[in-house]
Amino acid sequence: MRIIIDGMGGDNAPAEIVKGCIEAAKEITHEIWIVGREEAINEELKKYKYNKEQIRVIHAPDVIENTDSPVKAVRSKKESSMVIGLNLIKSGSGDVFISAGNTGALMAGGLFILGRIPGIDRPALTSPYPIMGKGMSLLVDAGANSECKPNNLLEFGIMGSIYMEKVFDMDRPRVGLANIGAEETKGTTVVKAAHQLLKKSNLNFVGNVEAREVPYGVCDVIVCDGFVGNTILKLTEGFALNILSFVKKKFTEGLKSKIGAALLLDKMKELKGAFDYSNYGGAPILGVKGPVIKIHGSSNANAVKHGILKAIPFAEGKVVQIIEEAVLALEEVESGE
Amino acid sequence: MRIIIDGMGGDNAPAEIVKGCIEAAKEITHEIWIVGREEAINEELKKYKYNKEQIRVIHAPDVIENTDSPVKAVRSKKESSMVIGLNLIKSGSGDVFISAGNTGALMAGGLFILGRIPGIDRPALTSPYPIMGKGMSLLVDAGANSECKPNNLLEFGIMGSIYMEKVFDMDRPRVGLANIGAEETKGTTVVKAAHQLLKKSNLNFVGNVEAREVPYGVCDVIVCDGFVGNTILKLTEGFALNILSFVKKKFTEGLKSKIGAALLLDKMKELKGAFDYSNYGGAPILGVKGPVIKIHGSSNANAVKHGILKAIPFAEGKVVQIIEEAVLALEEVESGE
Repeated sequence: MRIIIDGMGGDNAPAEIVKGCIEAAKEITHEIWIVGREEAINEELKKYKYNKEQIRVIHAPDVIENTDSPVKAVRSKKESSMVIGLNLIKSGSGDVFISAGNTGALMAGGLFILGRIPGIDRPALTSPYPIMGKGMSLLVDAGANSECKPNNLLEFGIMGSIYMEKVFDMDRPRVGLANIGAEETKGTTVVKAAHQLLKKSNLNFVGNVEAREVPYGVCDVIVCDGFVGNTILKLTEGFALNILSFVKKKFTEGLKSKIGAALLLDKMKELKGAFDYSNYGGAPILGVKGPVIKIHGSSNANAVKHGILKAIPFAEGKVVQIIEEAVLALEEVESGE
Repeated sequence: MRIIIDGMGGDNAPAEIVKGCIEAAKEITHEIWIVGREEAINEELKKYKYNKEQIRVIHAPDVIENTDSPVKAVRSKKESSMVIGLNLIKSGSGDVFISAGNTGALMAGGLFILGRIPGIDRPALTSPYPIMGKGMSLLVDAGANSECKPNNLLEFGIMGSIYMEKVFDMDRPRVGLANIGAEETKGTTVVKAAHQLLKKSNLNFVGNVEAREVPYGVCDVIVCDGFVGNTILKLTEGFALNILSFVKKKFTEGLKSKIGAALLLDKMKELKGAFDYSNYGGAPILGVKGPVIKIHGSSNANAVKHGILKAIPFAEGKVVQIIEEAVLALEEVESGE
């Protein structure tokens, strides 16, 4: 198996990307190809000892920037690390593609270059949602599809469930529908209809999940439209940062507080760590014909490493093929009714 | 001015309701009428010394429970504290009504008994959103209207702005539209159209507000549909409780931590207090023809007291009349175009 990674994507590229590859390579035997400006990447690689048969550089002269318009960038920057990387997946030279670059462009590139899985109406951008001290839930969709039909939400549930089963080795992941009440009759017309579709499906559907319960990890897959998913994700990030900075400020006011804070230093680190996404790997883009993973733009080497490690079961678990089969089976059931 | 309060609503009624009235009465000269089962309320009142001309009990033999279906309850329980209380506002015997009872019933009762303000398509349930150590923002809508038209969102902005101006004495409150990106082109069709309406209005519209920024208090009024508003509110509550219980658990692990936590006790109280809604008064129901305030079902005496104190500028500031005039002016502008 060969992992392809965008060497130029994200705020800390290529230094942290390369460092993350070096660290991951120590734990796996798979090949890693880093796509990007050869000179810049080699400059970083020089700092480490590594197996040159395991890590290779594929030159890409161009870079898609975060400020680029996604669709335009994918169409015009053919020699960018992202486009070349995705083409390596399409051609079969690579098995999974990872990028910390422009999210919209990665989504658009996945769609244009790899195409949609037949039967999937709207591919989804997902995100790991950290549950304090208890792993993560997968949020589907996390912002790509603001407006959804009930069927899209069903597909999000199916894709998320398969991903969690294969990548996190879960038996029948619990799928919940983000809603404003527990009762089936709650929510918008779309959400009510999606509830019925999910209930009739063969997923392990645990029903509606209120936002209040989301941080407690009441389900493994949180199904919602991209507007709600993005709101959940961003609010959590903003709130967590706000609390941490409030705590930091308060706990350094006066000598007594400073001593108290010093005694609690390891606990404070645990608190900070509980918000850390980076150990859970990246965010899979589900519904495109190939494994594609977005890692956070601010990813450090540790996040890159875990992105790579979780990319392996994503590709080896044949998540893309299983999604395709599941959607096909769904259509057969529907047409048989 | 006379404040009418539902003596039977909420988890701690009538004890904490009565106690809150007693405490509020010490700070104001306005009359307070407590509506509910006379015997039970008098039993509580007996515990305190108070001015019997200032606090009166209005007997209501029936109670709307939280488990009651809102519309049905309002229609059938004519002798309930909530229905009698709202009728006192309608008849002009009272100036503002406060309840910690069934939210749906209070919303339905407001609509059926008081009616909508002419020109307001959908009255809104609001909620104070606490900004850590920096007051609050008003979330409009907080859950009553899951599906909204652009015009509803504009009306939410107008109503919220007038409330914050009159009740919190703000000059041109900042109105933000909850969205998944800062650019005007972001979000759903409805949100994009609402952005344009808000931009053209004479509100102090600060543009789109991402969920990440909401906890920092970047605006005074957060405009959103009830699905998103409820998600923001409930996620914040759940996340805050989760963090507090995580911190409590971690900070009591081992002697070193316990000593550290003891030294930080006052700071921990400040942290907990920063999440406390109760000092900001209740949640006004905006768009009905009379000042109605929902206070949290779990309100203690302090929350009841602040609900009463903030009810005064709500009624005296003529928020309802000013909303009516603003909507009328809006319609004149529209028909004049």
